[in-house]
Amino acid sequence: MHFASDNSGPANPEILAALNAANTGYAMGYGADEEMAKVTARIREIFEAPEAAVYLVATGTAANVLALSTLSQPWQTLFCSAPAHINMDECNAPEFYTGGAKLTLVTAADKITPANLRAAIEGEETRGVHGPQRGPISITQVTEFGTVYTVDELAALGDVATSYGLPMHLDGARFTNALVSLGCTPAEMTWKAGVDAVSFGGTKNGCMGVEAVIFFDPAKAQEFEYRRKRGAHLFSKHRYLSAQMLAYLTDDLWLRNARAANAKAARLATGLRNAGAHFSHEPQANMIFAALPRATHQRLFDAGAVYHLWDGTLDGAAEEELTARFVCDWSIGDDQIDAFLALL
Amino acid sequence: MHFASDNSGPANPEILAALNAANTGYAMGYGADEEMAKVTARIREIFEAPEAAVYLVATGTAANVLALSTLSQPWQTLFCSAPAHINMDECNAPEFYTGGAKLTLVTAADKITPANLRAAIEGEETRGVHGPQRGPISITQVTEFGTVYTVDELAALGDVATSYGLPMHLDGARFTNALVSLGCTPAEMTWKAGVDAVSFGGTKNGCMGVEAVIFFDPAKAQEFEYRRKRGAHLFSKHRYLSAQMLAYLTDDLWLRNARAANAKAARLATGLRNAGAHFSHEPQANMIFAALPRATHQRLFDAGAVYHLWDGTLDGAAEEELTARFVCDWSIGDDQIDAFLALL
Amino acid sequence: MHFASDNSGPANPEILAALNAANTGYAMGYGADEEMAKVTARIREIFEAPEAAVYLVATGTAANVLALSTLSQPWQTLFCSAPAHINMDECNAPEFYTGGAKLTLVTAADKITPANLRAAIEGEETRGVHGPQRGPISITQVTEFGTVYTVDELAALGDVATSYGLPMHLDGARFTNALVSLGCTPAEMTWKAGVDAVSFGGTKNGCMGVEAVIFFDPAKAQEFEYRRKRGAHLFSKHRYLSAQMLAYLTDDLWLRNARAANAKAARLATGLRNAGAHFSHEPQANMIFAALPRATHQRLFDAGAVYHLWDGTLDGAAEEELTARFVCDWSIGDDQIDAFLALL
Amino acid sequence: MHFASDNSGPANPEILAALNAANTGYAMGYGADEEMAKVTARIREIFEAPEAAVYLVATGTAANVLALSTLSQPWQTLFCSAPAHINMDECNAPEFYTGGAKLTLVTAADKITPANLRAAIEGEETRGVHGPQRGPISITQVTEFGTVYTVDELAALGDVATSYGLPMHLDGARFTNALVSLGCTPAEMTWKAGVDAVSFGGTKNGCMGVEAVIFFDPAKAQEFEYRRKRGAHLFSKHRYLSAQMLAYLTDDLWLRNARAANAKAARLATGLRNAGAHFSHEPQANMIFAALPRATHQRLFDAGAVYHLWDGTLDGAAEEELTARFVCDWSIGDDQIDAFLALL
Repeated sequence: MHFASDNSGPANPEILAALNAANTGYAMGYGADEEMAKVTARIREIFEAPEAAVYLVATGTAANVLALSTLSQPWQTLFCSAPAHINMDECNAPEFYTGGAKLTLVTAADKITPANLRAAIEGEETRGVHGPQRGPISITQVTEFGTVYTVDELAALGDVATSYGLPMHLDGARFTNALVSLGCTPAEMTWKAGVDAVSFGGTKNGCMGVEAVIFFDPAKAQEFEYRRKRGAHLFSKHRYLSAQMLAYLTDDLWLRNARAANAKAARLATGLRNAGAHFSHEPQANMIFAALPRATHQRLFDAGAVYHLWDGTLDGAAEEELTARFVCDWSIGDDQIDAFLALL
Repeated sequence: MHFASDNSGPANPEILAALNAANTGYAMGYGADEEMAKVTARIREIFEAPEAAVYLVATGTAANVLALSTLSQPWQTLFCSAPAHINMDECNAPEFYTGGAKLTLVTAADKITPANLRAAIEGEETRGVHGPQRGPISITQVTEFGTVYTVDELAALGDVATSYGLPMHLDGARFTNALVSLGCTPAEMTWKAGVDAVSFGGTKNGCMGVEAVIFFDPAKAQEFEYRRKRGAHLFSKHRYLSAQMLAYLTDDLWLRNARAANAKAARLATGLRNAGAHFSHEPQANMIFAALPRATHQRLFDAGAVYHLWDGTLDGAAEEELTARFVCDWSIGDDQIDAFLALL
Repeated sequence: MHFASDNSGPANPEILAALNAANTGYAMGYGADEEMAKVTARIREIFEAPEAAVYLVATGTAANVLALSTLSQPWQTLFCSAPAHINMDECNAPEFYTGGAKLTLVTAADKITPANLRAAIEGEETRGVHGPQRGPISITQVTEFGTVYTVDELAALGDVATSYGLPMHLDGARFTNALVSLGCTPAEMTWKAGVDAVSFGGTKNGCMGVEAVIFFDPAKAQEFEYRRKRGAHLFSKHRYLSAQMLAYLTDDLWLRNARAANAKAARLATGLRNAGAHFSHEPQANMIFAALPRATHQRLFDAGAVYHLWDGTLDGAAEEELTARFVCDWSIGDDQIDAFLALL
Repeated sequence: MHFASDNSGPANPEILAALNAANTGYAMGYGADEEMAKVTARIREIFEAPEAAVYLVATGTAANVLALSTLSQPWQTLFCSAPAHINMDECNAPEFYTGGAKLTLVTAADKITPANLRAAIEGEETRGVHGPQRGPISITQVTEFGTVYTVDELAALGDVATSYGLPMHLDGARFTNALVSLGCTPAEMTWKAGVDAVSFGGTKNGCMGVEAVIFFDPAKAQEFEYRRKRGAHLFSKHRYLSAQMLAYLTDDLWLRNARAANAKAARLATGLRNAGAHFSHEPQANMIFAALPRATHQRLFDAGAVYHLWDGTLDGAAEEELTARFVCDWSIGDDQIDAFLALL
């Protein structure tokens, strides 16, 4: 009954098998390993982007901030929503890596709308040299509240970005959960919608720790390499990142894992709904935000369920409702979900 | 016949076995996993330092620059030798992480002497607020040229550091190779000699990618945690770092790997010496710097040997000597060494 | 009819006279001049703060960001209102100088209320190492909209700061305009209300270009000096900063200038009110935000009046109202104001 | 008898007169004042550079570090001599402003030779992404030891820079002292010799506090403006910087001041030489490094002479020689020099 995060579960055994298989003989370090060439080719194929520059790092924050710093200047402001991981959960890593750029928060319940994005950009009139200059836009897909931008919604944001000449970044820590939810292609969800750079997550979707950064225009590739190295994110034994990513993209493992996680979340959501939970956001991938009475939470925790309360704590009136976040990873068993729902 | 680097070889199977074993069920993320508690306990035990703060990161550069930035201020200068990894091989990561501190290069053929260290420190008279202020000292053990500071030599450097009130950092990317070379205890090679913080390497010595940062005084531990997070070096699935480090410190794997690597290098050094190679530094661990005629290098490369020329290239007069670096990792076979020496 | 800014007018002749007087013979550089010792003594006296550390810089932004960076850490977030100069008008200088700290915007029409400050601080739950940590609070007095915190209001904010253990900074670019508006003492408006550091402005109030930074607790004074020097804000010919500040604090010039500016603004405000202008904020010092019909603005500009429209531009329906900012500096003549009001 | 520094003396009265004259009526702030347009035109004329971008700041360090950060990237290393002001006297401001670039020290007694520059650049092989990348070259004219590069020497350094595709910066804190020493044109000493950006000093040569930054290629002008603003170096009451620089370049004041300072230094050098002083560098502008017996220094200090000992202190054997630095500013009287020489 573990729904705390999709980074709490184990890696898929196919990832481990790939690491074991990679662990033989000598390999060039620092990204010059043979597997990395295959990773690049595979990602270009999947994204229908034969020119794309592809890099691997080990954490999602590294992917985000290295990508964003490559797209921005220190005197600019980046546009994102308040709950964005880069704003809430990276302890100022974006500000650090960009050399002191700012984040301008776009009003958003979960998804950013074109109107709100435009309003935020207009709010940052450049005012000569006095204020921060407008910089890249960062969108999270799956959003931090478990919803998924449609391809049209992304393209509409891309249109706004283009109209201001600003680059657009996609934080895809849960990229594949969104992809299988939409049933679209990676190209449709990225460069065809105006996305310039993607943090393409593996860690939350069954890898041990690997994320790809993809630039569709390779013009800034060299700069990214310097930034990765001076950020201390270039692995000497890089083959172990490559092996994970290659296995992830082999035999549809990335898709299988995401479909599994989404299916589990759908099963859980149905059960929660039947039990009377209130949903503050409509779950569209593998994350659910649902409110239950405080006393119910207490009972579930006492029985061993693991998940996060999102607003408030267990202290307080028992009848009051508290929203909780439930995340399903690829590995969770139906038995776990059913046990949880039975308790409920 | 692969002597390019100790990060080119495979990880020890015991490390992979530990990863496989760790890959089950749910675990708390971000360093709160149960294995990490064991890692901390084990490192405190090994270092006879019950108060030490212990953290894991995935790259040696991350370990160095996070440790050094925690020990310094942006208006200070760090003291190291010119060939130090932090000066030569980290693409300004120390300057980035410290917020713009400087490196003052201490004259050193390989080891830094107390006199040279003192001269460098004296050279950075503080001059009021005008010049950079004196900051931490960073020593590399095994040095970048394959030599090893004795315990007394380290303590003499520690005395200099103490006399100026400056903290001392040990870049121990090859910590264990030095340890088994000296036959001393970790405590003798660190805090008993005046070292405040250690980058304790695992990656080059048979791990997949893990380094510990150890602070003997835990006063700055909280600051380190913020620095690691905003550097994007805090792993969500931290258990896979913990599992590596725990396996590394179990059943003396760290010592076995280092002893193996050092023994192979000794065998190789003997052969090189017998073949007339000239040693610019006396090999004391698992790295050899030896000069051979250009024509010999050409012949060895043609036969498939892999190693780095350190000064100059193959173009030029055949009879001239060029220094090369040979590194033995834990896994290299005697057959490889003997094949290489036979060629020679 | 120039109401664009209080930094558009001339310096008070007494300031120039002091510069001329200081321009003789040799003087120690970099703040060791004799006048600086007098400045420090005078500011300590005025603020009833015999231990205060006092420094001079030439721009208000330098004063703000050097003070704030001394009070904060790069992994923290600073609390300020959205219209704060540090947020709107410093092109990311706070982020640059702090090494990448963030600004959290406190909801505020003009003044920050204790409730809103508390809500903003609570919103930045520390969440372990994931989010930014709570850092200093920065309050602007006179506010960016021309209102003035009462002593009680400041003290109430100071209580909030104290209750969270956070330092408080006062951006006093128009410090003296507020002081004479309130009729309180500098101590009451600062350390007695819980303020730890002040940007004490001279430039907008009749100096050529000088601001003092005052720390009531001198513990961080040395750090400030390093930060000022590496920020390139330490003047070699420092005597010309000292001479300005000393003249400013002699014979009540600071108070006379501020009283003059406030009185002019009151005269202008009365005239605007009589002409039917709508005030979005109640003017309490030397700045007025008032709405007039677009056609009226057009007519005033055509007649040579100089001031800034605050929302919108002259294009549009003539009958619509647009808010403008009017600032009176110490030097503006009653004839100018009356000419403007006559036009109106 | 004050020879401590050329920033210890007073500003030329013509500078003060210009400030007084500028102190009337309203002026646009932030560099949009009318005088600034004249400054730009005048500098373009003097430098025969009709496209040059020209900016004013108040300190020499600001001029240097804003120029250098505009020419570099954080992962690069800048080439300068060890005694360079940017290395010795700016408390890591270059590292701060560049976002963590490094300085590589070029061997130099005072002037950098093309061979030494080339060696330093070659020493920074780029080594893929591992080491710092090669960045701009910074030359100081007058050098920190009072010597002056000939036009041919500068052009030879420019050729090295060009051959590596690296930009070249001239730290001209004493630009005019060098210019009148050489009798060449500003163009010959800068862009004709391959210089891309100049810190054109006013402060040490009779201004109160103003330096120009000149880019001969205006492509990076916009970036400079953002950097100046976020560095907190953009003056609101900018007219007072403009007025100084305009007066400085009017009626040859810049040349008159520099000729005066150089002539005084020549008179002093002759006297020192006659008195048996040993010169470690041949004085060619307004700075002298000369060795005298310790007892002589003691006697001179006791009599009220003011200057800096450069190596060592007064403690020690009386007969030993100590090098001192003597700087003549534009204002020093012959009587002061003669009084000093009489003492000697």
